[in-house]
Amino acid sequence: MSDKKQIADALRGLADNESAMDVVEKQVEKYRLDLLRPVYKDRDELIGRVPSFWMVVLSQHSNFANFIRASDFKYVDCIDDVRVEWDEANPGNFSVNIKFHGLEGDFPAQSVTKRFRLVKVKDDMKVSGNDEDRESGDDDDEEEYERLLSDPVDVEWPVAYDSINPDKIQDKRASKKEYRTGMKTLFGWFRWTGLKPGKEFPNGESLAELFANDLYPYCVKYYIEAQRDLADEMSDSDNDDSAEEPLELPSDDDEVQDHSKKRRLE
Amino acid sequence: MSDKKQIADALRGLADNESAMDVVEKQVEKYRLDLLRPVYKDRDELIGRVPSFWMVVLSQHSNFANFIRASDFKYVDCIDDVRVEWDEANPGNFSVNIKFHGLEGDFPAQSVTKRFRLVKVKDDMKVSGNDEDRESGDDDDEEEYERLLSDPVDVEWPVAYDSINPDKIQDKRASKKEYRTGMKTLFGWFRWTGLKPGKEFPNGESLAELFANDLYPYCVKYYIEAQRDLADEMSDSDNDDSAEEPLELPSDDDEVQDHSKKRRLE
Repeated sequence: MSDKKQIADALRGLADNESAMDVVEKQVEKYRLDLLRPVYKDRDELIGRVPSFWMVVLSQHSNFANFIRASDFKYVDCIDDVRVEWDEANPGNFSVNIKFHGLEGDFPAQSVTKRFRLVKVKDDMKVSGNDEDRESGDDDDEEEYERLLSDPVDVEWPVAYDSINPDKIQDKRASKKEYRTGMKTLFGWFRWTGLKPGKEFPNGESLAELFANDLYPYCVKYYIEAQRDLADEMSDSDNDDSAEEPLELPSDDDEVQDHSKKRRLE
Repeated sequence: MSDKKQIADALRGLADNESAMDVVEKQVEKYRLDLLRPVYKDRDELIGRVPSFWMVVLSQHSNFANFIRASDFKYVDCIDDVRVEWDEANPGNFSVNIKFHGLEGDFPAQSVTKRFRLVKVKDDMKVSGNDEDRESGDDDDEEEYERLLSDPVDVEWPVAYDSINPDKIQDKRASKKEYRTGMKTLFGWFRWTGLKPGKEFPNGESLAELFANDLYPYCVKYYIEAQRDLADEMSDSDNDDSAEEPLELPSDDDEVQDHSKKRRLE
């Protein structure tokens, strides 16, 4: 009996130890982002001087295209800048800012910022405030996990999308299919809240995480990969323009593959 | 022309920026390990109080079994303790310590420590010293990457493995097949160097990384998962022994899936 009690005590100790590790991980994440913030700021400025940087990154990324509609790429090609900023106090919360240039008569130039907040959730959909019950929930047996939520943010849709633009669809019942198609576009993602699964942009949380944990942290590596692929394709043509040559960095392909793990933020 | 020069300058700036990020990542990794070290130490002590902890973790892990031979599990079940320690100055280097209890007449109790060092490598197999040419390599166009190497470490093999034990095979030419079989066992892994691909334990680097980046950091989560699976299986039987019940921690399965990324060390 004393043995069993000792084991139970050790298991309780291990549960506390796991909590201590989670606290360390959050502290490390904050430390990392505090150190990276000025480096990202310098990088944003440098990226702004490379024409079509984000067009190259977004059009060549192996997964980004799976989230949106093929017709969206006309407007993805309008993206001049992408920035992700993490809250200093709460690095689980972040915003994605996207700057588009316009297309005459179809699509206005605009800068759109969508914010995401990491919230604690119990038994699936009961959402509790951010951080609030981190301590008080200890006695509770219900499983608790974290997920992203967001609020809809205004974005001007292309005129070419009028038929699927939810603000321009008069009869939502009659145009259910068009409404749903619209919600699956990149513009639909800006309306995503995380609270109406099946009725809004699919996998909105994953696309937010793709920006924050993959596309933004590794955009330079993706750009270089894309340029390398282009250089390989053009290797038999005359290619004496040094600015067009792939940028050599001390990294191999395997390393690039791994990066979505290394700089992952949760 | 001035445009092209500006772009080339920006690309060079981005290469420097990537190097600055790598420096930050290494600094963050050191910070993380410095914070985790005392937490891991407490945890090692707690784990030592839970009988068969590592037997449960190693036998239930979805990937570990793929690295070794099925017959090795008789000796995996002898593992009473696993510890990973990262070098304070150089967190890319680490050691894996495994403690076995003995099996009467077959296998002696022993504690074996295998050290791994992360080295810079150029054009595949030319190995350079750890850290040495991090700066001097800048002008070099060759791609450089990091990989693990190790030295063989003494371990006593089970008597049952005499026929495949490389130290007991008299004629290596005649017993090539037995020799190779031996090298594929867990005991073969302790001889792995990383310098003789095809002739030593297969994927020795990956097994080292599995211990350091997955099994050791997430062993408590794996233990809980395994206990939960057991509890599910026994859910219709009388089960009033609280020490045998799954330990509830604030994490969901998705989170567990993700952990190998979150605490990943490179």
